[in-house]
Amino acid sequence: MPPLSRSKPVVRSVEVHDVRFPTSDQLDGSDAVHVDPDYSSAYVVLRTDVDGLEGHGTTFTIGRGNGLVAATAENLAQRLVGMSIDEIENDMLAVWRRFTQDSQLRWIGPEKGVVHLATAAVVNAIWDLIARQAGKPLWRYLCEMEPERLVSMLDFSYVTDALTPARAIELLEEGRAQHAERMAALEANGYPAYTTSCGWLGYSDERIRSACEASLAEGWNDFKLKVGVDAADDERRCALVREIIGPDRSLMVDANQRWDVEEAIDRVNALSAHDLRWIEEPTSPDDVLGHARIAREVAPVKVATGEQCQNRVMFKQLMQSGGVHYVQVDACRVGGLNEVLVIMLMAREFGLPVCPHAGGVGLCEYVNHLVMFDFVALTGSTEDRITEYVSHLDEHFESPARVKGGRYYPPLEPGYGTHLRPECIARFLHPDGPVWSERNRLRKVSGE
Amino acid sequence: MPPLSRSKPVVRSVEVHDVRFPTSDQLDGSDAVHVDPDYSSAYVVLRTDVDGLEGHGTTFTIGRGNGLVAATAENLAQRLVGMSIDEIENDMLAVWRRFTQDSQLRWIGPEKGVVHLATAAVVNAIWDLIARQAGKPLWRYLCEMEPERLVSMLDFSYVTDALTPARAIELLEEGRAQHAERMAALEANGYPAYTTSCGWLGYSDERIRSACEASLAEGWNDFKLKVGVDAADDERRCALVREIIGPDRSLMVDANQRWDVEEAIDRVNALSAHDLRWIEEPTSPDDVLGHARIAREVAPVKVATGEQCQNRVMFKQLMQSGGVHYVQVDACRVGGLNEVLVIMLMAREFGLPVCPHAGGVGLCEYVNHLVMFDFVALTGSTEDRITEYVSHLDEHFESPARVKGGRYYPPLEPGYGTHLRPECIARFLHPDGPVWSERNRLRKVSGE
Repeated sequence: MPPLSRSKPVVRSVEVHDVRFPTSDQLDGSDAVHVDPDYSSAYVVLRTDVDGLEGHGTTFTIGRGNGLVAATAENLAQRLVGMSIDEIENDMLAVWRRFTQDSQLRWIGPEKGVVHLATAAVVNAIWDLIARQAGKPLWRYLCEMEPERLVSMLDFSYVTDALTPARAIELLEEGRAQHAERMAALEANGYPAYTTSCGWLGYSDERIRSACEASLAEGWNDFKLKVGVDAADDERRCALVREIIGPDRSLMVDANQRWDVEEAIDRVNALSAHDLRWIEEPTSPDDVLGHARIAREVAPVKVATGEQCQNRVMFKQLMQSGGVHYVQVDACRVGGLNEVLVIMLMAREFGLPVCPHAGGVGLCEYVNHLVMFDFVALTGSTEDRITEYVSHLDEHFESPARVKGGRYYPPLEPGYGTHLRPECIARFLHPDGPVWSERNRLRKVSGE
Repeated sequence: MPPLSRSKPVVRSVEVHDVRFPTSDQLDGSDAVHVDPDYSSAYVVLRTDVDGLEGHGTTFTIGRGNGLVAATAENLAQRLVGMSIDEIENDMLAVWRRFTQDSQLRWIGPEKGVVHLATAAVVNAIWDLIARQAGKPLWRYLCEMEPERLVSMLDFSYVTDALTPARAIELLEEGRAQHAERMAALEANGYPAYTTSCGWLGYSDERIRSACEASLAEGWNDFKLKVGVDAADDERRCALVREIIGPDRSLMVDANQRWDVEEAIDRVNALSAHDLRWIEEPTSPDDVLGHARIAREVAPVKVATGEQCQNRVMFKQLMQSGGVHYVQVDACRVGGLNEVLVIMLMAREFGLPVCPHAGGVGLCEYVNHLVMFDFVALTGSTEDRITEYVSHLDEHFESPARVKGGRYYPPLEPGYGTHLRPECIARFLHPDGPVWSERNRLRKVSGE
């Protein structure tokens, strides 16, 4: 191999996998709207001409539809073949816009839904590749980048009325003198997390009790419960969890978009005896004005939302309107890291805590990097900030999120952290991997 | 064939076609963002067990991405196989929610983008089938339906803070005594239209002049010009069109989302000498608060938007916030007829004129039905209402929109009006129809 190609690795091929886990069997992840999720990954691998140097990226979905996202990701990722990593990085904004502003494809978005989810898998794979080439965990690579260079890579279109690139550079410059000290603090104390594993909607009261007690024993202090279907069930389950965790730990509830605006206000106010910290996704993720009204009318309970907030334009409005207090950006929904960074910068400008959505497949691995960057480069604060954590499926990753005692710790491995084990991809490949082909065989046998 | 199946036709099979027209050759349809559209249709055919009884539905896209929408539509439409038309109609809300609230598929939306566009093709095909079975043009079939029954078919979730089903029934009841009189008025005078054919962004000044002069001769009174790239070009083109059409006809401009919020305000105010009726799509279609601010700061120019407004929840907020004056709902983007009706009912409640988006492939045929229903069942008014019309591609439809002298006239044929001629589908099928296979062959020959 000539030295030139070793110093400037080039993307030579792309692989995309439709990987699905049959989580609906156990009702893990079940909520008021997503009653039977099969946690899934549209998984992108960018291969280079340097042996062993690959970028992996994933988008999280919950089953049907994952194939559509994977097909779209494959189409987008092919546009990178032949480009060197340096070319991609040096022209990042143009690469982003090739995906998000394709003059024909944008009609079926723009910047939302299938295409934006697919964009995320590719964009996240690019950043994984860049950080691996640099031999650094992504959060550290981002922290070390010159603010002006990082900002030049990001797309501020449609949000300059809230945050200009110049102001974004200022925000990044502000904390630079504290980076080393903040990194040391994270290594020593970690970053606060909370668990959603205790309160899935499909769980019985007994299962909730045992899960809460186990989490208490592990050191968790913040608990989230799924609500939204039956009001009497919500009341009983909130009382149960509050009784188990006591008055000093925090209890959040999550309605997963189940309610209309006025219904949400009534239902949340009916639970006011249980000292709720936040109501999450009270109504449609598209309803900025609805969230703002709910926030006014359920105070002091705060509003958390974002896991299905489609892009920076919607987040901007949620922030401008007072419709969100806890910014629960998803690492995949909004087109990947580039847009997550814009949203985190806007949250910093508005003084709102970013508490990223996690769980799913690979989301905990992603947010582990995101909150480290947020703390080191932007806020230096953990006050009123807690990041979601759900442990199931972490065994499938080569470097699972570093979580202990209810806290995330800084990732150490190069990259963006979501390499699935190859044997996992083979086993859970849809529809031809052994897990799914066996199910389909049984289904046929039983005449389903 | 047994009599039962003749009286209750059943959907027996589904065909979906990816049909694309190479409109980018001529820059027809070009604007500041969509520089090279190939107007396309994801085309659904529902076949029944009654010979000749079929429902056809289409979603409009502009090229790449049409295959994704078609694949999704096929998946959704298959869910209807085995259902009778009566079953579908009697359980319409449940059928709608099988598409829009699929517990796994909604993650990749919800109710937006690819899945909602695909839903529209299927839902519109259902209505075409229902109206054909009844032997009536769809607009008339809808007008004759009992308000309570029609409203029971529609999904008001997330919009009840703006419009309840009970209020929707009241609105439909209000005009019932005037239906016959309003129908006669439409047959006599038609419904006002405007043309977009004169001012595509890719057109030269000479071509704009000749197109405007031809349209004036045909009787058009309202003209729309694409703007948004170069400010000096916009100024010159607005002056040109205003000079040609004179001071008494109306001139609208359309920026196709090209600007950020503050830029939009400056750019529109810079054109104030030309007496603009509206600025269309000044910024991101997702920016409700941005539209509201622009509307306040460019008055008396009004704001028109909607062709890329993703669903009823976004329209609700545009109406609540004062961000839209002219409601340009698209017959395909928002999941099809059911949601269009909810949006038209909300517009009636807010007292805003509905001026549906048209052009493309099949949109003029759809809006011909929509505005007739709006006039007869909801408003009885043409004041400040004009509906878009673009004539190209209408030769491919069996029953093109009835337009003459700058006015739409009530469709007479049974159905929803978008049956493409079979020879057109065969010719423009992507990628294997002769039009595209020949292009691909030439591309290979020339080494492109």
